[in-house]
Amino acid sequence: MKIIIDAMGGDNAPLEIVKGAIQGHKDFGAEIILTGKENEILKAVEDCGERLPDGVTIRNCTEVIEAEDDPGFACRRKKDSSMTVGLTMLRDGEGDAFVSAGSTGALLAGATLFVKRVRGIRRAAMSPLIPTAAGDAVLVDCGANIECTPEYLLQFAYIGNFYAKHALKLEHPRVGLLNIGAEESKGMQLHKDAYILLKEAGDAGHINFIGNVEAKDALKGSVDVIVADGFSGNIMLKTIEGTGSIVKTKLKGMFMKNLVTKIGALCVKGGINDIKLSLDPNERGATPFLGIAKPVLKAHGSSNARAIRNAVKAAMDAVDSRLEEEIASNIELMQVKSEKKEETLAHE
Amino acid sequence: MKIIIDAMGGDNAPLEIVKGAIQGHKDFGAEIILTGKENEILKAVEDCGERLPDGVTIRNCTEVIEAEDDPGFACRRKKDSSMTVGLTMLRDGEGDAFVSAGSTGALLAGATLFVKRVRGIRRAAMSPLIPTAAGDAVLVDCGANIECTPEYLLQFAYIGNFYAKHALKLEHPRVGLLNIGAEESKGMQLHKDAYILLKEAGDAGHINFIGNVEAKDALKGSVDVIVADGFSGNIMLKTIEGTGSIVKTKLKGMFMKNLVTKIGALCVKGGINDIKLSLDPNERGATPFLGIAKPVLKAHGSSNARAIRNAVKAAMDAVDSRLEEEIASNIELMQVKSEKKEETLAHE
Repeated sequence: MKIIIDAMGGDNAPLEIVKGAIQGHKDFGAEIILTGKENEILKAVEDCGERLPDGVTIRNCTEVIEAEDDPGFACRRKKDSSMTVGLTMLRDGEGDAFVSAGSTGALLAGATLFVKRVRGIRRAAMSPLIPTAAGDAVLVDCGANIECTPEYLLQFAYIGNFYAKHALKLEHPRVGLLNIGAEESKGMQLHKDAYILLKEAGDAGHINFIGNVEAKDALKGSVDVIVADGFSGNIMLKTIEGTGSIVKTKLKGMFMKNLVTKIGALCVKGGINDIKLSLDPNERGATPFLGIAKPVLKAHGSSNARAIRNAVKAAMDAVDSRLEEEIASNIELMQVKSEKKEETLAHE
Repeated sequence: MKIIIDAMGGDNAPLEIVKGAIQGHKDFGAEIILTGKENEILKAVEDCGERLPDGVTIRNCTEVIEAEDDPGFACRRKKDSSMTVGLTMLRDGEGDAFVSAGSTGALLAGATLFVKRVRGIRRAAMSPLIPTAAGDAVLVDCGANIECTPEYLLQFAYIGNFYAKHALKLEHPRVGLLNIGAEESKGMQLHKDAYILLKEAGDAGHINFIGNVEAKDALKGSVDVIVADGFSGNIMLKTIEGTGSIVKTKLKGMFMKNLVTKIGALCVKGGINDIKLSLDPNERGATPFLGIAKPVLKAHGSSNARAIRNAVKAAMDAVDSRLEEEIASNIELMQVKSEKKEETLAHE
């Protein structure tokens, strides 16, 4: 299996990316192709005190997509960027998955443009695993799609369901619609309309739809798949991160108060770290863009070597899951008739 | 000062409500009028091992609004309910503020119907204080208004600003618009349009608008007033609550692991409780409905006596703040011309 990695994307590129990629290769055995400026990558390899192992190769490119580049056009304009080259290699079968810690917007636009969506999928969704009191849950979408239609949310429910089966190893993941109350009359018109579609899919036995779910209950572990419009999903994700950072500050304040509390800290040393990590969605490694025709994964912008190593594993799992095939073979169920007709007409 | 309290609202009514009201009277000196079934209230007083103190009186009513009553019509239909009677007493000047732990929807609809909004205010907003790493912030709105217009958000910004001045004792509260990124192009059309209005108000020096704010940064303490449509605001509030409950579970797991970790727990005993409380927005007492012509406050449904005691203080502060006058005297600034015209036409 070959994993293509954007060596130039992210705050700590290329050093941490290269280090993590080599570690991932060693730990999990995947072949790695690093895209980026060859001399900088080789310098990074040297700085790690490593030599380029067999099985890790470099595809030289001359450009880098920067944070200030317009995400919608970056991959199109910078044809020889580490991101564009990686995505076109994936499209052309020169690798099995692509991982980048670069601009989320540019990666999503580039993946859609070059690798394309599974036929019939309206929008790709970003689907991180988030912490709950009972383990992890899939949040789909977390910010890729701001203005959604009910059909998008139906598709998010299906692809979230397929993803949860693999990522959480569940036979019948419980799918809930993120809302401000459990009653079906709750939410904006979008949520009321989506509820009807999800209920139909549930009643037909295609997904295990358990109804609307409040953020509080989702975090208690009442669902495995949280279906959300990208705006709400992003608010939820960022609120978890923000609350997590309050907790870190408060824990530090609590344990650093005096000698006695410092002894207390020593008594639970590993535990504190576990809590911090469990509240940090970034620790779950890379997030897949579900609905793209081949696995494209976004690693966090601040990824360190360990995050990239984990992203290699996440990418390998994504390839093994053959999610794209599962989506393609169920696409008929995932389309709303009226909208399907419109789309057909628009293409004629 | 007279605070009217709905003795029948909430999960722990009437016992905890009565207990908390008496405690609030003793601690803060306000006169209290309890609305509800007199015999049940007197029984509750007895169960507390108390006598009804001078300054705490009962207004007997025969009905109670239940969770299953339609919130939009409950106060109108149950004219002799503890909530409706309390609201009409407030309207008629028989008290200075009203507190209820009953149905949020019924209270909002009843307050709007009987007490009315400040003239020119489009919608009342629920504005709890939420925890941040730097203290507290005002979240406006947290769920009263699901479908919002840009003008609603402009009004939320102003009333949130006035409230933060009193509740957080700040001269120039920093006002931010809850969004999924800092750039002004972010969000749904609603947020883009609202951004323009808030920017104008900021440029004119009426509010200290610092731009869009992500949930994560808001929780780090980068703003004092978080302006949100009610859907996103509710997702944010419930996510804080949910993450808080994960933290509680994890802390318990960490400290209860073995003898050594239990010793650790003893070393930081008070601190653990502080963290739990600081993450629980309900601990901040009652939440005002901003924009109603007189102070109406919602206590959490699960309020215990301590919460109601704190709600008495919150209600007294609300009366002292004279927020309604501040809103009324600034209402011209808070109206969008085109929408103002439409409204006028609709009333002709």
